[in-house]
Amino acid sequence: MQVESILSPKLFYQVENVDNKVVVVIDILRATSTITTILNNGASSVIPAMSESEAQEYKEKGYLVGGERGGDTIPGFDFGNSPFHYKPELVRAKNVVLTTTNGTKCIEMAKNAKRLIIGSFLNLEAVVKKLKAWDRDVVLFCAGWKDRTNLEDSLYAGAVASLLEDAELDDATILVKDSYLSSRHNLFGTLKSSNHFKRLESKGVTKDIEYCCKLNIIDTVPILSNNKLVIK
Amino acid sequence: MQVESILSPKLFYQVENVDNKVVVVIDILRATSTITTILNNGASSVIPAMSESEAQEYKEKGYLVGGERGGDTIPGFDFGNSPFHYKPELVRAKNVVLTTTNGTKCIEMAKNAKRLIIGSFLNLEAVVKKLKAWDRDVVLFCAGWKDRTNLEDSLYAGAVASLLEDAELDDATILVKDSYLSSRHNLFGTLKSSNHFKRLESKGVTKDIEYCCKLNIIDTVPILSNNKLVIK
Repeated sequence: MQVESILSPKLFYQVENVDNKVVVVIDILRATSTITTILNNGASSVIPAMSESEAQEYKEKGYLVGGERGGDTIPGFDFGNSPFHYKPELVRAKNVVLTTTNGTKCIEMAKNAKRLIIGSFLNLEAVVKKLKAWDRDVVLFCAGWKDRTNLEDSLYAGAVASLLEDAELDDATILVKDSYLSSRHNLFGTLKSSNHFKRLESKGVTKDIEYCCKLNIIDTVPILSNNKLVIK
Repeated sequence: MQVESILSPKLFYQVENVDNKVVVVIDILRATSTITTILNNGASSVIPAMSESEAQEYKEKGYLVGGERGGDTIPGFDFGNSPFHYKPELVRAKNVVLTTTNGTKCIEMAKNAKRLIIGSFLNLEAVVKKLKAWDRDVVLFCAGWKDRTNLEDSLYAGAVASLLEDAELDDATILVKDSYLSSRHNLFGTLKSSNHFKRLESKGVTKDIEYCCKLNIIDTVPILSNNKLVIK
């Protein structure tokens, strides 16, 4: 198994033969943590929408719609990007539409993958278990922040790589793995120094960040199927 | 002092106000290690050439010319990209023209920086000393390999960051710094696992790589001045 890490969406074009690979989309703060939570809370599916207007169209058809731009909830939408917005009693058995600054864009970019799954610290071990079971080449696709490399997505890529013991790692993956291994005992502390933490902290969402750093509290993996994220 | 790291030339466009910043161009295997060595061996200047044909024109004017494409010496040139080619008795008081796959391209891209300097493990402490003395915002610009993030350039960026104690680091820099701190006691061993090492090793240049991992054997810093790299 070969593992490559893409540290910015601008570098995704470097992936060859994506239709033969498993892509893990990573947007820890907060899209992929939130998607994992929505499905774990009983939603039937999460439908990634590429734009605010596309999400708005769904809303007019009666869907529940969540989304953010630049970290803020979109006015008029049912939910923002906080995992705490999507309570089980609100989303159970519903199809939830979600649009975010970085994460949903990456899902669109990678939708031709052999398999596209959603990664977060919340379901780290479940993701690794799937990757091992499928035994295909893996792309760890970090959404970053406005095309910049960010710490939380990179460290998650490193966490996944550290658990794929026999895999052949490209240089970017060796880099994030070593970085994760040096900071894993103080993950929240390390992320506190990140740019994104400071950005979100100023919006008062420390509780969200603490939640998104929790390890293995969810044992399911969202997978893209017919343009919807579902649990199979 | 703010420090940002660019982990692929494709991401250099993200640097704002480069004309107010110091850019450190990093292409450890082997362009920036070789440039540092050429100047330390007494050359008057190293002239980065953007293309093989530009270098060829210099050759026709009587300049010494070195270069590689894809890791191989360009046929008909005086030197390749190995630091060992540029012996003091050959380069002393000469202007040497150099063109390489990745490194010289990055020099061209960053030439509008307030100051552009050349970094390598060979002159790590000297580079850090300059950055501290100038006390400006810093861009650690990794050449990578064909626009991909590579391990040796990233680890060098991390090494520089680890020595700039009071600087404010962006996420990419925190990442490479943590990675460097976890591998610095076995730098050569870590680099042995890199893609580039395997690529160059297959060309029989292990000796070059060992040399490029040496720390602080040169105490000068090449700086771009009137489109030439010189020591001031």
